[in-house]
Amino acid sequence: MKGAVRITPYGGLGEIGMNCMLIETARSAILVDCGLMFSELDHFGVEFIIPNFSHLLKKKDKIKAIFATHGHEDHIGAIPFAIKAGIRVPIYASHFTSLMVRERLKEAGLETAVPLNVMSPGGPIEIGDMTITPERVNHSIIDSCALFIDTPIGKIIHTGDFKMDPSPHFGDVMEWNVFRKSGDKGVLLLMSDSTNVEREEEGIQDEHISVKLEEVFAKAKGLILVSMFSSNVGRMANLFKLAEKMGKRIALTGRSMEQNVRLAMEHGAISFPRSHMISIDEIDRYDRNRVLVLSTGCQGEPRSALNRIAHDEHNYVSLTEDDLVILSSSQIPGNEMPISKLINELFRRGAHVLYDAIEDVHTSGHATKPELKKMIEMVKPKFFIPIHGEYRHLVHHANLAAETGVEERNVCVIQNGEAIEISPNGIEMVEEVTELRVLVDGREGNEITKDLLRDRRRLAETGVVICMLAREKESGKILTKPEIHAKGLVNESFESWLIDEALTVVDQVLSVYKKELRQGVIDPDLGENIRIELRRFFERNVGKKPTVVPLIMDV
Amino acid sequence: MKGAVRITPYGGLGEIGMNCMLIETARSAILVDCGLMFSELDHFGVEFIIPNFSHLLKKKDKIKAIFATHGHEDHIGAIPFAIKAGIRVPIYASHFTSLMVRERLKEAGLETAVPLNVMSPGGPIEIGDMTITPERVNHSIIDSCALFIDTPIGKIIHTGDFKMDPSPHFGDVMEWNVFRKSGDKGVLLLMSDSTNVEREEEGIQDEHISVKLEEVFAKAKGLILVSMFSSNVGRMANLFKLAEKMGKRIALTGRSMEQNVRLAMEHGAISFPRSHMISIDEIDRYDRNRVLVLSTGCQGEPRSALNRIAHDEHNYVSLTEDDLVILSSSQIPGNEMPISKLINELFRRGAHVLYDAIEDVHTSGHATKPELKKMIEMVKPKFFIPIHGEYRHLVHHANLAAETGVEERNVCVIQNGEAIEISPNGIEMVEEVTELRVLVDGREGNEITKDLLRDRRRLAETGVVICMLAREKESGKILTKPEIHAKGLVNESFESWLIDEALTVVDQVLSVYKKELRQGVIDPDLGENIRIELRRFFERNVGKKPTVVPLIMDV
Repeated sequence: MKGAVRITPYGGLGEIGMNCMLIETARSAILVDCGLMFSELDHFGVEFIIPNFSHLLKKKDKIKAIFATHGHEDHIGAIPFAIKAGIRVPIYASHFTSLMVRERLKEAGLETAVPLNVMSPGGPIEIGDMTITPERVNHSIIDSCALFIDTPIGKIIHTGDFKMDPSPHFGDVMEWNVFRKSGDKGVLLLMSDSTNVEREEEGIQDEHISVKLEEVFAKAKGLILVSMFSSNVGRMANLFKLAEKMGKRIALTGRSMEQNVRLAMEHGAISFPRSHMISIDEIDRYDRNRVLVLSTGCQGEPRSALNRIAHDEHNYVSLTEDDLVILSSSQIPGNEMPISKLINELFRRGAHVLYDAIEDVHTSGHATKPELKKMIEMVKPKFFIPIHGEYRHLVHHANLAAETGVEERNVCVIQNGEAIEISPNGIEMVEEVTELRVLVDGREGNEITKDLLRDRRRLAETGVVICMLAREKESGKILTKPEIHAKGLVNESFESWLIDEALTVVDQVLSVYKKELRQGVIDPDLGENIRIELRRFFERNVGKKPTVVPLIMDV
Repeated sequence: MKGAVRITPYGGLGEIGMNCMLIETARSAILVDCGLMFSELDHFGVEFIIPNFSHLLKKKDKIKAIFATHGHEDHIGAIPFAIKAGIRVPIYASHFTSLMVRERLKEAGLETAVPLNVMSPGGPIEIGDMTITPERVNHSIIDSCALFIDTPIGKIIHTGDFKMDPSPHFGDVMEWNVFRKSGDKGVLLLMSDSTNVEREEEGIQDEHISVKLEEVFAKAKGLILVSMFSSNVGRMANLFKLAEKMGKRIALTGRSMEQNVRLAMEHGAISFPRSHMISIDEIDRYDRNRVLVLSTGCQGEPRSALNRIAHDEHNYVSLTEDDLVILSSSQIPGNEMPISKLINELFRRGAHVLYDAIEDVHTSGHATKPELKKMIEMVKPKFFIPIHGEYRHLVHHANLAAETGVEERNVCVIQNGEAIEISPNGIEMVEEVTELRVLVDGREGNEITKDLLRDRRRLAETGVVICMLAREKESGKILTKPEIHAKGLVNESFESWLIDEALTVVDQVLSVYKKELRQGVIDPDLGENIRIELRRFFERNVGKKPTVVPLIMDV
């Protein structure tokens, strides 16, 4: 591997979420991001998905650090799991990101497990034979960074998630010149965020959203409720400013909203007269048009504050006709239905509701095609690898790079698990890692294996049938009438008839069994026969085969 | 009810899908549409959702006919269930719609159960004291109709689903003048399709799609595969014409595609040289750029032809680099994730893929805001009720009507189950019907009750634990060691430890039980105590309470 750098994506390439990439020289390695992914399999108890760290453990001694590009869950959420798995290395993160990581570590009881270092834009960090310099980018969370990685064979730029916003809600504009200057000096490899490559139009700037929000705020007669990602601290800072300007009190609802406002105040992104923050249970003491509520739940999460408000089941917030609800957020793919239901419920409360389909109340944190093109033009990399996107996004982004001057043979689409080695001569696929993800069961963190998920799927679709009987241990004689119990099989009114019929099937199996016993057959497989015949019976009668558990108790 | 008309929506108002509305005078009643709805609850065995016909059965003798506005499943799919439930009345449908209904009835073995009458645009049908005249509208299925219903108190117009397309793929342009003329004479009530009210822009015309498809066809080098709703016969007719013009053979894959092409040929919408239709297993005999494949599966349905093709598991179609796949369809809300996965898989095959996010290869069949406004302006109704839409669509459409000249107090948002009576004096809410929907289990049509769904949800999330032991009937003495079996609880490597621990919990319950027996306690509730303690144990150890089934066999 001398004279080359190896890159292995463990997540985020071929999917949106769970970003995690290992960058290795001959001597050392760093992990860029270590995120988790939420799953549409939550019906089956899957809380979220994390990378399979058993692969990384093989390189435990080589890995020197984890770099977090920003504080979103899909970039930092799996760090506690990595540490628990045994990857105990220093973490580097910008100030606000480090606060977010600190909270995750605290929650997992790992606050002192590894050093957590604050990195600053422009400040180089030496890790073995690499020098990593974080540089400021704009995104939907403050303090986001790209990483400029100087390796023995040349400079690699990893953009993290980014957009180019000349007027961000909070903080400075990203340092375009740093990218341009590096480009002029020569960049070996650019790896760039592909999320929004399908969007042809220029992205909406934060400034435009600010103006829009001020406009709709000015027209509102009643209480204003803004729901948003609690990590969008820039937007929050903007709303705090607006509230101060308009003389509104702010109340928060939702645990992560309270937590992140606290962190943003610690960081300095939000400063607001303490006296103007009120507790959510105090809102009725103020004129409704003097209150701004910030709430979690913009993705339609069933247990969120906003969902309780939408169903008029919140302890303190009850919407009325003059109230205005703003969903200042995008829809994470897969959440369209719950968000749609949420919006309909808010309408049923009589409130006025604004959301991105009908009003510019949100802008994405990811660069669209024209900005992505600009990035490639500025950096002028020799090699290009699209990152952070579903497979089609990676392909579109690769095509864009080829159209924008990168030589076609130097553009490389790789997916999770596909390790490549890059040298000044070219890119070579060197290994394919499989079994990349672990489904996490509930908050306890147990793994849901494929077999377990399959069992749960079957139970969900067809229910379970238990057939039980007692048998004399010595003689094999049946001691009891068989009993059948069902859960989730059919509705109650159908069940008793169905079970009576099923018992006659079991009786038939039992008469064959008794005959076999008399004939001296040794250990006939009674349980398996019951299972097979019952599944056939149910397939005939309800059109599907439930999970059948035959239980024979030898007394 | 004299001097009034009662309207009861059983589905489709407050949701997209399962359209079904009863329109009653004092003497008679007609059912407008009788559709089903697909469900995101398919994990739990819910095949689809249908109206609860027990309400309609109470009015069985009054209901004289079912009118189907067009042939989509959400307008005709529940007709067989209505008939089975006992609503055996004549069905009226336009020609192509009647063919679609006929197939549904055939499949259910109900072909001769009720008269199926073909209605023609402009041809009035007398039902009791109502006269119903179907009028042509444009939509994403041919032969769609609005219904003009003359009642003793005035004219009611029910638009069905519609758009105004001056250049439909197939058939005539909708008869705007009929709407305008009725408007001039005076319309009591307009009920109009709300689906696309949130779209501000003019809808794309079919003609534009035709031109676009011809363009991309001309550029394609390999095989072309178009996936679309198999009911979009107009688009199909257009593609057949294009294939003929370009000298391509057509092959079909997917059962409903084959069925609907057959119906469209019977109807006359598609005429194509028989010799140019080839069987899907013959495509390899032709040059790839001489073959057009039409396929189902545009919604990412796991068992569809296109999904098999995307995973390279189709018997006859294997995509290569020069091939072009076009998804000429919209995304039904809730299907975003499976469609996204499908597109990514098609990209992985190396094919060139076009879909509505990146190219105009589809247009919606529903009028957007400007057309909806025009409809209200033409009809100038005294009363307005928005139909076919989620609750927020109904509200937006109601607001539009009020802005477009309908008196605000004559605009009425009603939801499923809210029966109103309309008279020239006003609209009055008269009844609220509840329990409106029936979840249908698998293809067998059994009902999934709330309790059953709850059981399946629990099984899916936490699995099931069975604890079994045998007891002497007379003495209550425990005869066997308890056994615990689990399905879907935790992964295999964790399970054995967990069950061993759980058995010690059962042992503790048993020792209390034995003590109680000795103390002469009559019939201590052993099963329930085991259930409670095991659930507590699992909550401590895996963070959730599985379904626990204690089974005590009295021998």
